[in-house]
Formats: sequence, structure tokens, C-alpha cells
Amino acid sequence: MDRDAILLTPGPLTTTLRTKLAMLKDWGSWDADFNAVTAGLRERLLDIVHGRETHVVVPLQGSGTFSVEAAVATLVPRTGHVLVPDNGAYCKRAARLTQMMDRKATVMPVAEDAPISAAAVEAQLKADPSITHVILIHCETGTGVENPLAEVAAVCERHGKGLIVDAMSSFAALPIDARTVRFDALVAASGKCLEGVPGMGFVFIRKAVLETCAGNSQSLAMDLHDQCVYMGKTGQWRFTPPTHVVAALSEAVAQFVEEGGQPARLARYMSNYRTLVDGMARLGFRPFLRPEVQAPIIVTFHAPGHPAYDFRKFYAAAKARGFILYPGKLTQVETFRVGCIGAIGANEMRQAVEAVADVLREMGIPSGAPGV
Amino acid sequence: MDRDAILLTPGPLTTTLRTKLAMLKDWGSWDADFNAVTAGLRERLLDIVHGRETHVVVPLQGSGTFSVEAAVATLVPRTGHVLVPDNGAYCKRAARLTQMMDRKATVMPVAEDAPISAAAVEAQLKADPSITHVILIHCETGTGVENPLAEVAAVCERHGKGLIVDAMSSFAALPIDARTVRFDALVAASGKCLEGVPGMGFVFIRKAVLETCAGNSQSLAMDLHDQCVYMGKTGQWRFTPPTHVVAALSEAVAQFVEEGGQPARLARYMSNYRTLVDGMARLGFRPFLRPEVQAPIIVTFHAPGHPAYDFRKFYAAAKARGFILYPGKLTQVETFRVGCIGAIGANEMRQAVEAVADVLREMGIPSGAPGV
Repeated sequence: MDRDAILLTPGPLTTTLRTKLAMLKDWGSWDADFNAVTAGLRERLLDIVHGRETHVVVPLQGSGTFSVEAAVATLVPRTGHVLVPDNGAYCKRAARLTQMMDRKATVMPVAEDAPISAAAVEAQLKADPSITHVILIHCETGTGVENPLAEVAAVCERHGKGLIVDAMSSFAALPIDARTVRFDALVAASGKCLEGVPGMGFVFIRKAVLETCAGNSQSLAMDLHDQCVYMGKTGQWRFTPPTHVVAALSEAVAQFVEEGGQPARLARYMSNYRTLVDGMARLGFRPFLRPEVQAPIIVTFHAPGHPAYDFRKFYAAAKARGFILYPGKLTQVETFRVGCIGAIGANEMRQAVEAVADVLREMGIPSGAPGV
Repeated sequence: MDRDAILLTPGPLTTTLRTKLAMLKDWGSWDADFNAVTAGLRERLLDIVHGRETHVVVPLQGSGTFSVEAAVATLVPRTGHVLVPDNGAYCKRAARLTQMMDRKATVMPVAEDAPISAAAVEAQLKADPSITHVILIHCETGTGVENPLAEVAAVCERHGKGLIVDAMSSFAALPIDARTVRFDALVAASGKCLEGVPGMGFVFIRKAVLETCAGNSQSLAMDLHDQCVYMGKTGQWRFTPPTHVVAALSEAVAQFVEEGGQPARLARYMSNYRTLVDGMARLGFRPFLRPEVQAPIIVTFHAPGHPAYDFRKFYAAAKARGFILYPGKLTQVETFRVGCIGAIGANEMRQAVEAVADVLREMGIPSGAPGV
């Protein structure tokens, strides 16, 4: 049986056949036809955040983390000082990459099951005026918690601090409006809620700060200012683009627009999320987060408390039924994660819950309830 | 008419349908099935350089330049000093990225139409004992010249210097044997002579130097030591891999092996090259390089001297006939480039020459001969 498994992960995701079929063509990366694909994609990406007036968008080869690192390398000068409110693994990664490139980073620890508090960020900015930038992970994929982007952006604007947003797993699903929320950079990637294939990221950079970024980056490959200037002059990427990935993303964005854009995508993911958590609750599973702080992107569940539970067996049995789950990323509690995103709907989520029910029966686990 | 144009470029290249069809599946990047694809690919890549005993291979997201930068960032300590013999644009790029990351780089200028001399490299190493590493571009894509890898490697070994080889456009076509040629790192990418699609590179690192590389990189994303250690422990990429690109490369490598490996690939490219230059010579075109220093990868031709010649028109007319040419990259002389690589054979090269003949007729250019 060779039917593709459904990917219930934070990405790479299940994509449509139409998106994948866009990869059956070889493009010349220097050619005007491909430049037109890049240009069209950049315009439609800007539209998603209503950012044509205020921002440019710079695509970059590599995974989303490459684009996060590039945003920090490009926007934060060597004398900069970055505050990273930390409620999860991706916050820690952002702090680490900032420190590795010899920029000062102060980590502000927050509980993993709570959103970052804009008031706490403000207090920190007041306490240490040497801070120049804040890095905010919009939806922390480690747990699935949604952080308050608009509130933190308002605090940064009030204090004249730069804001770099990692919107990797929220972009195109949760609303982000550059007309009302001020950010200096916002990072996302092809293989997330836009439902393209993985292989490139992109960074929205506020036009007002773009020129100040020249010469900041110590990395040639990750210099988004250089990439942006070159692209402006030639229409081309500086270095070989992942042409098939770009073409697939362009096709995925066309389908995103046809579906009804961000509101429609969010509605579908909300329906996926409700179907998942309601179904899992019937099986006894308990989400790690309180519903009011949970983004409908990826859900962390406590592992069942029953002694017969073993993640590897659970994963393999779900996979045998056609569903790829995701391991937890918490160190203190045993969890697993289930994504609600990708080219899937309520049908797939219902089938996934049924598959999990069947897996529990097979493993002799009467309930998914966590231990005490 | 929607038939794909033939890409006569240094990459991205024309790939087989079989390679592209491998992208019609979505893989879970954490899943054992995908880890097996990565592991199998890494083994077959090592086989191509006969490097299983001596080297590891570390794949990296992004374009080939990302992997070159990563190799330098990972292998050269902050106190290192890199010698870059320079006979073209990719040499200059390697020097630039080295200097940007605050490593000392000394550029050794060489004529663009001549290979680098191993004796001159040796003289430089003797003259400046502070040099720790040499970066060699094996086939300088700016012109198409082949540099003497084995000779430069022998010099580096004799003087105890590290050698980083950019084998982007030679790997899998020109012979490279890790059993007899000592290199610390050798870099190539998916979208070149292996005939995969673009989106990832890979770096062979000599096991004897790997451990000394820990902590060198100031970039998290480009830390090949970290990537290698993590991959060894988990079988996974540290950050989201370009799953479809990896799957396509795996399928492309399978076809490479079926074709007969590097000797067969070189034979096909040699045939492409001969068909091209013989045919172009009949039209009056003159290659920029002497044949004895020319690799059968990409050929730089002098632009026709006739006043009716204009590269953009020439390019557009060839494209209308189904062939994508490539601009020159030299600053002193007007040239254009034609690639001999990709999933094409002598038929396509003959058709390309016929198309160029037809273009000249249309443009009213009696001969491709350069001006004096």
C-alpha cells in the first residue's frame, strides 16, 4: 500500500497534488520567466500582511531557521542587544543563534505553558535601556502557545525598540496586519501554513529600517540587505534559488488566495483543531495548554499515564494507520504533538482520532488520560 | 507550446522526469522512512569520492554557496588565515565570504583564462607561514576552467595546510578520489552534475579534522560540526530539511549509479562538450579558454564581433527555439556561456547548435567569430 501518510506535524506538511505538480518543471534561475514567478510571489506575500506600503519581503534559501538567523544577522548591529522572552524551544534557539553571532542576547524566562506578557517585556525594556531589539516567537511550536504579537509590538514601538517576529508557524493562519502592528522583521517559511514544500523562508523587513541594515551581516549567504538590493536590481536571487520549491510555493499561494486567504485558512485550521481536541478528549487525552492560550496550529497532549504507553510504539501504530504524529519537545513532562495544519480538513482529523482510538485498543490502553 | 526549454546553464539543470516525479510525495522530516533516505544518500555520496574510510558527508539546506560558507565557517578557526588563489568569480566570492566572517583571507590573483598553478600556491605557502588553509575552486564556473586539484592537494598536504575544495560544478563528473587526494572539506550541491534539483548542498569533511571543528562556526545554521553530530545521534537534520529536494536527489543519484557512475557521466558530458564546441566552431564561434584548460562542464564563448549582435536578443531568440543559454561573467571581454551538463545528450547539443545557427541567420549575423 503506497498511499501517502497524512502529516500531523508542524511541518513539512501534507500538500495538495496541485502544489507538488508545480515541481515537474525545470526553471532557468536566471530566466525572466522565473524572475516573474519570484516577483509575483513576493507581491502576494506582502498582500497577506497588508505590507506593500511599509515592508519589503526578502526570500531566502534554506529552512525557516536560516531565515530567523538571517533576520537577526541583518537587522541587529554588532553593538546591538536583543531581548528574547522565552517560553519554549524556538525562543531558546533564537537566543542561541544571536549569541553565536556575537550579539548580546538577554533571555527572559517565562513558563512554557503561558504566553509571554507584554507588560513583563515592557518592564524589562525599562529596566535595561541598552536593549535595542526584541525577538518574539508568535506561535511557539515547542508547545503550541500563541504569544501576544500586537501587544508586544505596541510596547516595542512605544519604547523605540526593534521587533523581530518569528511567525514561522502562524503566518497565513493567524491574522498579522502590518498596517496596525509595527514590526521591523517578520519571518516565515514555505512549508508551513502556506502549505508549500520546505526549502525556503522569507523575511518581511520594514522599509524604514532596511537601509540601516547594510553591512550588519557577517554572513554573505544570510545578508538579507544584500539579497534585497540585488533582487531589486536584477529580479534574481543572489545565489541559486530552490526553483522547484519556489514554483510550488507560488502554486500553493494561488490556492491560498482561492480558498479565501488568511480568514479561510484560519477557519479550516480552527475546525481541524476543534475536531482533534474534542475527539481526543473523548479518548481521555488532555492538552498541555489551557484552551485560551492555545493556537489552532499544533497541539501538545500529555502522554497517557497507562504503563503500556510507549511513544515509539504509539507513533509506529498510528503511522501504520496512515498518520504521522510528532514527538513532544518538553523536558519536564512526557508529551506528544499533533499538528492541525496542512492540506487537510475535518475528515482527516476525524480519521486521525479514530486511528488513535484503534491504537489505544491495540496497545491495551483504556484511556488516554495522563498520569497523576 | 508548453514543452520545457533545455537548460544549457551551470545549474539549475534539466533533470529527468523520474527525478522530478520523486517530489510527488510529502515526507515527515522526523520519520524513520525519511531518515533512511538521508542515510542512503549520504552513503552513496561518500562512495562517489571513495571516501567512506576517510570522510563524513554533511548535507546542508540552501544553495551551494551556503555550503561553501558553512565549510569555511566550520573548518577555519577564528585565528585562521585562508589563501584563495583567484581565477574567477567564484574564487572572489569564497574570499569575500571568508573575510565577512572575520577570518583573514589572502587573495592570490591568477589570470582568468589560466588554471591555478600548484607551484605558485606552494611559493605563497612558503612565503607566508601564517596561512592555515587554502580554498580551491575545482572548476571555476565563471569561465569553465579546470584547476589542478590533485597537485594543489599534494602541496597542501606537504605543508600541513587545510584544503577546502569548492567542487560545485565538477563533483560527480570529474574524477575525485579521497583515497589519493587529501582534502579537509569538499563542497558540492544537489542541482549540478548529479542532476538533482537545487535546494541543498553537502560537504565532505575529513574525519581527522572533524573534531577540531567544534565551536568554530559563528553561525548556528551553518555549523556543519553540529549538523554532523546531531545527524549521527538522531539520523535527522537539525532543522527542517527540504524533503522533496532530498528525495529528488536520492532518485537522481540512483540514476547516476545506473548510468555507470562518474566515468559514464564524464563520458556523456565530454560527448556533449565536443558536440557543442565542434558545432559552434563551424558557426565561427571561438571559446574563451584554450581546450587543454577547459573542463567539459560549461563553455565560455566570445560574443560575435558583428555589430548586429546583442546578448539579450540572442538569448531571447535561442529561448524561443527551446534553449536557455547563460550570460558571461567576465568583466573585460563580452562573452556568453553554454552548459554541457544536465539530463541531456548529444542530440540536445546538436539541436542547440542548429538553433544557434538559425538565430544568427535571423539576426543577420553571418559568423559567430569574435571581433578583433
